[in-house]
Amino acid sequence: MVVVMAPEATQQDIDSIVDLVRAAGVDAFVSRGLTRTIVGLVGDVHALATANLRSRKGVQDVVRISEPHKLVSREHHPARSVVRVGGVPIGPDTLTVIAGPCAVETVEQTLEAAVMARAAGAALLRGGAFKPRTSPYAYQGLGEAGLRILAEVRAETGMPVVTEVIDPASVELVAGYADMLQVGTRNMQNFALLQAVGSAGKPVLLKRGFAATVDEWLMAAEYIAQRGNLDIVLCERGIRTFETATRNTLDISAVPVAQRRSHLPVIVDPSHSGGRRELVIPLARAALAVGADGVMIDVHPAPERALCDGAQALVGEDIREFSIAASILSPVMGRTLTQPVPKGSPLPVP
Amino acid sequence: MVVVMAPEATQQDIDSIVDLVRAAGVDAFVSRGLTRTIVGLVGDVHALATANLRSRKGVQDVVRISEPHKLVSREHHPARSVVRVGGVPIGPDTLTVIAGPCAVETVEQTLEAAVMARAAGAALLRGGAFKPRTSPYAYQGLGEAGLRILAEVRAETGMPVVTEVIDPASVELVAGYADMLQVGTRNMQNFALLQAVGSAGKPVLLKRGFAATVDEWLMAAEYIAQRGNLDIVLCERGIRTFETATRNTLDISAVPVAQRRSHLPVIVDPSHSGGRRELVIPLARAALAVGADGVMIDVHPAPERALCDGAQALVGEDIREFSIAASILSPVMGRTLTQPVPKGSPLPVP
Amino acid sequence: MVVVMAPEATQQDIDSIVDLVRAAGVDAFVSRGLTRTIVGLVGDVHALATANLRSRKGVQDVVRISEPHKLVSREHHPARSVVRVGGVPIGPDTLTVIAGPCAVETVEQTLEAAVMARAAGAALLRGGAFKPRTSPYAYQGLGEAGLRILAEVRAETGMPVVTEVIDPASVELVAGYADMLQVGTRNMQNFALLQAVGSAGKPVLLKRGFAATVDEWLMAAEYIAQRGNLDIVLCERGIRTFETATRNTLDISAVPVAQRRSHLPVIVDPSHSGGRRELVIPLARAALAVGADGVMIDVHPAPERALCDGAQALVGEDIREFSIAASILSPVMGRTLTQPVPKGSPLPVP
Amino acid sequence: MVVVMAPEATQQDIDSIVDLVRAAGVDAFVSRGLTRTIVGLVGDVHALATANLRSRKGVQDVVRISEPHKLVSREHHPARSVVRVGGVPIGPDTLTVIAGPCAVETVEQTLEAAVMARAAGAALLRGGAFKPRTSPYAYQGLGEAGLRILAEVRAETGMPVVTEVIDPASVELVAGYADMLQVGTRNMQNFALLQAVGSAGKPVLLKRGFAATVDEWLMAAEYIAQRGNLDIVLCERGIRTFETATRNTLDISAVPVAQRRSHLPVIVDPSHSGGRRELVIPLARAALAVGADGVMIDVHPAPERALCDGAQALVGEDIREFSIAASILSPVMGRTLTQPVPKGSPLPVP
Repeated sequence: MVVVMAPEATQQDIDSIVDLVRAAGVDAFVSRGLTRTIVGLVGDVHALATANLRSRKGVQDVVRISEPHKLVSREHHPARSVVRVGGVPIGPDTLTVIAGPCAVETVEQTLEAAVMARAAGAALLRGGAFKPRTSPYAYQGLGEAGLRILAEVRAETGMPVVTEVIDPASVELVAGYADMLQVGTRNMQNFALLQAVGSAGKPVLLKRGFAATVDEWLMAAEYIAQRGNLDIVLCERGIRTFETATRNTLDISAVPVAQRRSHLPVIVDPSHSGGRRELVIPLARAALAVGADGVMIDVHPAPERALCDGAQALVGEDIREFSIAASILSPVMGRTLTQPVPKGSPLPVP
Repeated sequence: MVVVMAPEATQQDIDSIVDLVRAAGVDAFVSRGLTRTIVGLVGDVHALATANLRSRKGVQDVVRISEPHKLVSREHHPARSVVRVGGVPIGPDTLTVIAGPCAVETVEQTLEAAVMARAAGAALLRGGAFKPRTSPYAYQGLGEAGLRILAEVRAETGMPVVTEVIDPASVELVAGYADMLQVGTRNMQNFALLQAVGSAGKPVLLKRGFAATVDEWLMAAEYIAQRGNLDIVLCERGIRTFETATRNTLDISAVPVAQRRSHLPVIVDPSHSGGRRELVIPLARAALAVGADGVMIDVHPAPERALCDGAQALVGEDIREFSIAASILSPVMGRTLTQPVPKGSPLPVP
Repeated sequence: MVVVMAPEATQQDIDSIVDLVRAAGVDAFVSRGLTRTIVGLVGDVHALATANLRSRKGVQDVVRISEPHKLVSREHHPARSVVRVGGVPIGPDTLTVIAGPCAVETVEQTLEAAVMARAAGAALLRGGAFKPRTSPYAYQGLGEAGLRILAEVRAETGMPVVTEVIDPASVELVAGYADMLQVGTRNMQNFALLQAVGSAGKPVLLKRGFAATVDEWLMAAEYIAQRGNLDIVLCERGIRTFETATRNTLDISAVPVAQRRSHLPVIVDPSHSGGRRELVIPLARAALAVGADGVMIDVHPAPERALCDGAQALVGEDIREFSIAASILSPVMGRTLTQPVPKGSPLPVP
Repeated sequence: MVVVMAPEATQQDIDSIVDLVRAAGVDAFVSRGLTRTIVGLVGDVHALATANLRSRKGVQDVVRISEPHKLVSREHHPARSVVRVGGVPIGPDTLTVIAGPCAVETVEQTLEAAVMARAAGAALLRGGAFKPRTSPYAYQGLGEAGLRILAEVRAETGMPVVTEVIDPASVELVAGYADMLQVGTRNMQNFALLQAVGSAGKPVLLKRGFAATVDEWLMAAEYIAQRGNLDIVLCERGIRTFETATRNTLDISAVPVAQRRSHLPVIVDPSHSGGRRELVIPLARAALAVGADGVMIDVHPAPERALCDGAQALVGEDIREFSIAASILSPVMGRTLTQPVPKGSPLPVP
């Protein structure tokens, strides 16, 4: 941390900062120039968190330097992590596809979607039972009935299940059925929810807030980690910008940036970024080529009747095209495409 | 709602849309041009919400027209509403100031801040007991002990209390102490929380999400209203843009825009927008002059020791300057500055 | 400037930075901590501009501190400047209104608009003869014929004229007619144009780029100043954000921010920010109350027939409302509303 | 185009719109509903451009439908175009790499950079002689001396040359040396410059404005096309968002979006998007995989001494890595990597 003194700061102002810093057990180094003085701080600057250096007399600016995300940062944990979901790895050596319908509607629809997901090369099944919707008049999901459908389809297909949790009160319920808990983009800074999933004993898929910086995203992961759960997978899904040609602007650079700053796996959701079917496959290819550890895509047996986000779900011919792209790009990127768990393999039971 | 057909759409595509729309009990009007056909929809288009018109064969675009916020919209409720908080009105004829410390720390600090708030012209006291913080290592608030301090200071000063609620599970607890429940910017789309405050029987201060459109903000209010609670005050507090010179970019235009689209009162938080003390008073003046129904400001007896956001809290001389500005601008805007409730007046009891 | 060394930087890396810095005549102060070293730089760091410190071995980050805008910065010129346009002052003690039609169409329309401008309290007349338009198929302005109309209306009304210049090649032509040269939002970083207006011998109205930071805006002003022209007025006109409810998001905070960092006058254009008639007056009031040195508004005798931006032009009843607001808010802000130059007063001749 | 009438619009208001539209030779279709009426317009709506429908009495909104970019749109020109630069194709069947130093400094540096560019697989050499810089105190380029160096290096290496033009007045000069004229991000809406390059008889590389929508980008291309020059290549280089972890946010989705809406080739500049060396290769891979027709990268023999953007230039080992990635991904994408023109081949002469 560096404290930049204002040009008009007095010697007393500087001394007062140095005293304050040293009192907190942090080293202070004063650099005096012609027009300005700089105080460099080295040590455990968290001890100064409540000191409000920026408000002190004579201080112009305070510049933070070291990474504030202790547990998820790569600084103290250089090797990239592998997170296992119902036995399926997500990490630096594999390419893992998660696919399924945006919302679980019926057993038949979910089962058909799971078959499509498998055909697309997916090892994990996604599907929403609790749906956070911008409008109170939009479809809100089946709730626990949806979870039961997901468990049934898992039993049938052997695919571990990823599903969203939207309320701390229902985390335990959802964790009883799911193999991985998804925290959605609107909940990335729902800190009560982050703490609840941190204690739930299941891996977490943390979507980036649509207006969150990479820094805030890692800080949200830190909330989960702080409760003892380091099985976190980060998911870039597009950010909000001035551009309206796409539903969101996929921030493809966030993948290498987050991978350099954190040891956690990073995947991409090209369906919610593009928002239109014809953009999903190009964006999925970009995600694989940039170095993502996986992708999550929407599939639906009948998108025109989907209760949620039908416009972006892949259908018949797309599935084949996606599956070919994933097969070709995996070895190019030095990764193995994670294989679907064969039916009948031992499953985690709800 | 208007369905724009693609140039290559066939007669069958058009007929199929018209059939679908009419089957839902909505009128369809077909306008055929040289290169393109347009289908205008009139009636209760919510019945079509699940039909995914956009995914249908031959459809290029679907353009929505009517206001989707039935309860908070001004379309069916042209008169602007007055919301009363512990007897204090917020609405079109008054100018109401809410002030207090960002975080409640001790009885003394809160009481001193309340005295400052009153001096600033505030009729309502704000103060955070539960604090949503970006970092898990930042100060998280006193919790229920903070609520007790607020109730004590209310008893002492007669000022009704506004405080934040961050988790559906603690809404009942907070509602037991507070006169108004605040939903913070990071929770604007925490739908479980919105529904909980909608049922809590207390007025709600709904801050705009830092990356929410006015449309989404009103939709969040609609979530609360749908539970039967129309005592909602909207609070603009700055949005996230590319500009880094201020903490957030105060979207001053959102005040008249929201007031034209909704009957709910709209106030402004200049402290969190600017993020720096010297910007608070100019921005507060702008808020009053643009036509806001009130402002909410941070005050703190000793900002340099504040556990949260000290850099933006007003202090001694600022209070006087703010209070003069509010007194002068109220009559200019045709409003009465809401008077602090006198000490000893009948108070809502927790 | 502060150079932050990476944790793995060697002593040799540090020495090499220090040597490089000192070779450029700048002082270097090394602060060594437990895990990291910081090098503080004091002196004329511009001498280091080409050294690419950020690319050097062992360097993690370089943080800039002092203001890079020497001529327009308030650091070395604390008193706020007054710019005179055809005798009309724009500065800290006055409130100056600029009004007129977006585009000059005919003598009659311009004259009628000038009469409306005067009625609104305007001392300066604006009007576009050269129009930068997003589409090549939109109206591009009358060119020199429009400049002649402006000069004619100035002769008739005594109002000095502000008009836009869009090409370095026509700066001399426009400067021959105008009292103030306007550089539009899309040209804020058209450096050839900035240099040309810097040498044209006329005051300049520099609109902020719709996606420019305050820092870049001041840097654009510095380009003009560097050519010897310090008669620059900054104009905030809204920035581009995710919000689509308004044409642009008026960054009202930019006014006090720019006034604190630069000695140049700062005015606001509420017409282009809001983009809709009903927002212009509320935003103009906000601009005056935040402390702007003036406002620039669109007026048009027949907005429904305007060739450009008719939707935001004020008409009959608005003019009176605006003029009352300006009269009332000027003394509140400790300013004198600049009076229109009386007809027949000595004018600058083209 | 669709005109949405307000609920309170009278029959007279509607008739008046219909008359106005028909008078302009455009068909009007009225759709009357319970609460609202919609007027669909079919025909040459440009004839209505000056009618300001939005300002008419009773009108609530006007929604545009058909593509406004006639010449560059794919609607009337479905086959994707190939643009040839000094004989080198850029288009749908090839993958073309453009590489070189950000700024031309000396013959030796440019020649060394050209050798690196070739090693990276580049068929075209880029290099800036005229540099648009945010600060007037930053390096501004060698001007014509730089153009002469580029011509010399072209003679030596056989690589056609792409260089930036920043002022309409120097377009002819630059076109005398260059094989392709680059219009930079800050000049994307410098309409005088667009018109000048439209008449210069050389292919144009049009970078996207850092805050321009895809729509505005295509409109800027339309300005060039309207002057008779359809040899335009679009270049995505990152947009400005709230995220500060990268210099700009590469809008990777803009590639498929622009390719679907326009027949022009679209390439990507990963160097300016990421702004840091370690991001360039991942982003270049993403660009190739998303379907870009080429990439443009910065290389520099000694980035630590570069006068401009050294932090993002590729060096020794990176070149090999990039070249391998381009070789592997070209066939995956069904494209041929454009081969460098062999030395001694017939060259375009300045």
